[in-house]
Amino acid sequence: MKTNLLRHLKWLRWVFLPAIVAASLLTVTPAYAQEPDPTAELMRGLNTVWVLIAAVLVFWMQAGFAFLEAGLTRAKNTTNILFKNVIDFVFASLAFWAIGYALMFGASAAGWIGTSGFFLSGGEDVAGLPVMAFWFFQLVFAGTAATIVSGAMSERTRFVAYLIYSAVISAIIYPIAGHWMWGGGWLATLPFGAGFKDFAGSTVVHSIGGWLALVGTLALGPRIGRFAKDGTPRPIPGHSISMATLGVFILWMGWFGFNPGSQLAIHGGNADAVALVAVNTNLAAATGALVAMIVTWAFVTRKPDLGATLNGALAGLVAITAPCAFVTPAASILIGAVSGVVVVYGAILLEKLKIDDPVSAVPVHLMNGIWGTLALGIFATEGGVTGLIAGNFGQFLAQLIGVVVVGVWCVFTGYLLFFVLLKKFVGLRISREEEFKGLDFKEHGAEAYPGDAVSSPAGAD
Amino acid sequence: MKTNLLRHLKWLRWVFLPAIVAASLLTVTPAYAQEPDPTAELMRGLNTVWVLIAAVLVFWMQAGFAFLEAGLTRAKNTTNILFKNVIDFVFASLAFWAIGYALMFGASAAGWIGTSGFFLSGGEDVAGLPVMAFWFFQLVFAGTAATIVSGAMSERTRFVAYLIYSAVISAIIYPIAGHWMWGGGWLATLPFGAGFKDFAGSTVVHSIGGWLALVGTLALGPRIGRFAKDGTPRPIPGHSISMATLGVFILWMGWFGFNPGSQLAIHGGNADAVALVAVNTNLAAATGALVAMIVTWAFVTRKPDLGATLNGALAGLVAITAPCAFVTPAASILIGAVSGVVVVYGAILLEKLKIDDPVSAVPVHLMNGIWGTLALGIFATEGGVTGLIAGNFGQFLAQLIGVVVVGVWCVFTGYLLFFVLLKKFVGLRISREEEFKGLDFKEHGAEAYPGDAVSSPAGAD
Amino acid sequence: MKTNLLRHLKWLRWVFLPAIVAASLLTVTPAYAQEPDPTAELMRGLNTVWVLIAAVLVFWMQAGFAFLEAGLTRAKNTTNILFKNVIDFVFASLAFWAIGYALMFGASAAGWIGTSGFFLSGGEDVAGLPVMAFWFFQLVFAGTAATIVSGAMSERTRFVAYLIYSAVISAIIYPIAGHWMWGGGWLATLPFGAGFKDFAGSTVVHSIGGWLALVGTLALGPRIGRFAKDGTPRPIPGHSISMATLGVFILWMGWFGFNPGSQLAIHGGNADAVALVAVNTNLAAATGALVAMIVTWAFVTRKPDLGATLNGALAGLVAITAPCAFVTPAASILIGAVSGVVVVYGAILLEKLKIDDPVSAVPVHLMNGIWGTLALGIFATEGGVTGLIAGNFGQFLAQLIGVVVVGVWCVFTGYLLFFVLLKKFVGLRISREEEFKGLDFKEHGAEAYPGDAVSSPAGAD
Repeated sequence: MKTNLLRHLKWLRWVFLPAIVAASLLTVTPAYAQEPDPTAELMRGLNTVWVLIAAVLVFWMQAGFAFLEAGLTRAKNTTNILFKNVIDFVFASLAFWAIGYALMFGASAAGWIGTSGFFLSGGEDVAGLPVMAFWFFQLVFAGTAATIVSGAMSERTRFVAYLIYSAVISAIIYPIAGHWMWGGGWLATLPFGAGFKDFAGSTVVHSIGGWLALVGTLALGPRIGRFAKDGTPRPIPGHSISMATLGVFILWMGWFGFNPGSQLAIHGGNADAVALVAVNTNLAAATGALVAMIVTWAFVTRKPDLGATLNGALAGLVAITAPCAFVTPAASILIGAVSGVVVVYGAILLEKLKIDDPVSAVPVHLMNGIWGTLALGIFATEGGVTGLIAGNFGQFLAQLIGVVVVGVWCVFTGYLLFFVLLKKFVGLRISREEEFKGLDFKEHGAEAYPGDAVSSPAGAD
Repeated sequence: MKTNLLRHLKWLRWVFLPAIVAASLLTVTPAYAQEPDPTAELMRGLNTVWVLIAAVLVFWMQAGFAFLEAGLTRAKNTTNILFKNVIDFVFASLAFWAIGYALMFGASAAGWIGTSGFFLSGGEDVAGLPVMAFWFFQLVFAGTAATIVSGAMSERTRFVAYLIYSAVISAIIYPIAGHWMWGGGWLATLPFGAGFKDFAGSTVVHSIGGWLALVGTLALGPRIGRFAKDGTPRPIPGHSISMATLGVFILWMGWFGFNPGSQLAIHGGNADAVALVAVNTNLAAATGALVAMIVTWAFVTRKPDLGATLNGALAGLVAITAPCAFVTPAASILIGAVSGVVVVYGAILLEKLKIDDPVSAVPVHLMNGIWGTLALGIFATEGGVTGLIAGNFGQFLAQLIGVVVVGVWCVFTGYLLFFVLLKKFVGLRISREEEFKGLDFKEHGAEAYPGDAVSSPAGAD
Repeated sequence: MKTNLLRHLKWLRWVFLPAIVAASLLTVTPAYAQEPDPTAELMRGLNTVWVLIAAVLVFWMQAGFAFLEAGLTRAKNTTNILFKNVIDFVFASLAFWAIGYALMFGASAAGWIGTSGFFLSGGEDVAGLPVMAFWFFQLVFAGTAATIVSGAMSERTRFVAYLIYSAVISAIIYPIAGHWMWGGGWLATLPFGAGFKDFAGSTVVHSIGGWLALVGTLALGPRIGRFAKDGTPRPIPGHSISMATLGVFILWMGWFGFNPGSQLAIHGGNADAVALVAVNTNLAAATGALVAMIVTWAFVTRKPDLGATLNGALAGLVAITAPCAFVTPAASILIGAVSGVVVVYGAILLEKLKIDDPVSAVPVHLMNGIWGTLALGIFATEGGVTGLIAGNFGQFLAQLIGVVVVGVWCVFTGYLLFFVLLKKFVGLRISREEEFKGLDFKEHGAEAYPGDAVSSPAGAD
């Protein structure tokens, strides 16, 4: 590095030359709207403001996941888990730009896969929005799906394996399943009820992330010391409930972009829909937190437990994500209440099965993603969709089919990814010694809180 | 818990059966606007975007209070104070949904109390906004009023007592007084000046929170060790100025929703008003911080003190909250400057009175809430309201009446709540032993920063 | 302080009397628009919403810088660095109100300096926005330019010197140069290409901050222990990568206000431009992070390094700031890729030159500010601006002139400020003893994490 700097940089030509060619090829001049109708222009501008701000809030959820997961794990792995939460969004940004968006929202091949729009080519409006605004909103959702896994697989996964996982989910697994549901694919057009419905992604984002988290943690096995030899679970507390709490506040905040933003418009009746979604989102989160606190207090730890309460809020948020535009506030409270029970007993169930999910990603995202998707089929009464309580069994059936199909897809691709590709060919889990010392030391050579920097000479004065 | 899981869950039917009945009863189909006028639709959409985003920023202030208060208190109570700041918003969400909103904004019974809109029934627009958008904006204000108390009462309050307090303030104390001022009640229609005015809540939110904080801390008494036997105050530093600083940045940011959002509209002349409010808010915060720094540096600690400066910024923000739409930027600077003095000497005054307010909630929210409310009566020249400097004594009188009335209401209800209900019947303060060990250990069984999780084996390598 | 409180407050009359006079003099009644055209009113409201929200996001970047810089430095200086990041925005708010805005955006004296609008006088719309909205947006940019320096000069600068620096940059250095580029001054009207272009401030904000950071750190010299006697660099790790990571997430988020907000409008074709800017901003950040990670991993530390990756993201963000509205997404990826190389080898170059820049402010803000400004002259193809790849050498020349001129201006004023005024007359650097003990102890008398508050008695139980 000290000598021949230029020689070391030679390889860069293999990055830049093709990139320059690509840049010239891909020059996209967006068709700046020159509509003569000022009302239509204002409407488009208004909806663009809304969607962009919502997208920024969803981007912010990356920080929420980073802090939630780092707070719930040990300081010796903090650099690693933060790193993962930064780099998976980096990979998502580039993978979704190159491939993912096209597979998810491109012209559909028989409802199974998108086939156009690679490298953000094509400049027409989508959903009445500038294509770049729509793309940006969809990107942050892809990033969310990708980042859910890092918590469940924390404290024992090789960094390189995580990089590969990140690229594959953002480029392939998420977009293809997403196409079936949000890209006009076959699940969206099922001949039951109004077809499979998932307003903001209980299944599309959270269950997909949750399924892969489950397969990933099964491929890894539990952390050393998580279960005694006789199988007794031994909790491994995280290093900072402050970080975890900040993470949940960030996520809760970001969800006000995630769900209400998914309306993709706010003029006319959309304003009512968006506001209803915001209220439902908040009520489900509050009830999820309350019920998780009560259930834990009454039946599990016998104390009010902050960790369980935070996970309860997230559970409510995940569960309301699919049905938020189709149910009443009262139904949202009910859905949130059930989610609070699901997340507490879901975590207990995983422990009984000796599955180690350090941040409860599976109960939060998978189990409540499923619950929320089915709850839509039960409680829907608004927005032109009806569920069981309105006597419509077809919608519930469509939801059930979607849940099962996505489960099969994720278990299948997740198996290939984690058990075959990563475990057999790359190496998925760090060594025993490395796990003791912490990932930060071995993988990154950088502790999160170096002793010399933290200790204050003044204090010793 | 290990056996008979289902039997343990039996009680849940008492939650869910009534809830399902309620859900069907309360099914509210919002009257999706089908206005033929596209300009009116756009205006409504525009104002909804603005109010929803402002509401999200105010929600974010919950995280700001959580981190401010946790940073200014000791690590042994961190789980507890974070928990309080999460759960009071949970209670506010549900209490304001069921009761609070109706009491505050329902059809008025002679200007004293609202009587309609329980459980979010009724779907007409309010203030030109979808009712759900208006409700959500008001909810986050109720949440702010509720959360102010937790800091003043920190490090020695029983968790159960705090839960009860949270529900009572959100369901009853805040909404009823709020009705008098913001619900079209009798204070808003006083025959002096333009009636009592409080643009964004120096009194409605901050003084109410501040008064209850004062009564609560009086009911508790000071923390062990806060005052020596001879009465000498002994500062108890908080465990992380980093967390407190982040909290203040979050609050400052959130205030750009709190104040400018309170215009509830942004079309036409509202755009000027909103922008003026944003500028005034920022200038008062800056001046409050600057003056608090200078005063502390020159007369108190003889050093530039970050804690005092942060509280100065908050003091300026609280003080400008009432008058921000009615004064010039220059007047805002003046109001902020006074607030910086008030907060520093207010904290000193509390110490002299041997009142222990760990985070200076009373100087920040109560004293500056009063100052800001009166300052409106002095400096108002904009937005159709005039104060003393424009020769209008009536407005100042209206403000003074509002301040006194709210003080009486809060001291009265606070006395019943803290001294009678909680102290006599529930138990307000934790045991001496528990206070030594910290609330986290006894109340929650979970330290914020467990030693095993924080210490890094790699470091010991 | 205990006695004669009032006498101590006497001096305040010298603050308040003039201020009251000023307040009455400066009473500015904004000309509330009473336009009869509802479409124009809506457009103005829509653009105001967008610009205000973008401004709030840019304000939030103050917290990002605070946490980034605090995380990358030692705990014994944490109070100090957080304090600086709070107080420089306070000074910016007041200095930009009194003087800075007028010098930057006032009526131009021959393209060299603005001459009107002191103390926010004058109420006409600017850029189709309420003047207060435009002012607020510009203020947060001035605050950003000011705060960049604190990191480079951290851990060894006297607090008083920093206060003076803050006022001077916000009142004079930034606004005058800003006038040349954004105030309609001579650089903006250069007869080459479309004149000097800097969409959101690679040069105006980041290079100015970066140049002053460089001069400041040169005036200070390196921290004790940063270089061995033989010149070998010895890294001084920061105390919390968690704080630094949060800082970068905040900055990345805030940049979605910084860049897309700089369009200052979002109706009609502006919606396409804003969305393109958002996408370009994100792609450059992602690529900067990715390339910095790869380069460090392959050639420098041989490990994936989180600090380098975070700085890579910031480097991409700084570099794309000037060209984001004028290039394609593919070109943004290319620009971001180069920025990732620049930031890594820029930091190595500084080390070789024995310049101590604790947070890499110079590689991030100065070097990539220059790179981004020149990249505009190379890759511009959109928004009516063309660069080298479109055969336009004039634009590149204009960019080069701007880069050089701003460099000369900053080195000249920075020399006067840091080497002459502060070093000779005020005192720039703390004592050797103070540096060992930490700034928090001596300058502020307040540790960031006091031992008594952090240690938990329960833990010792």
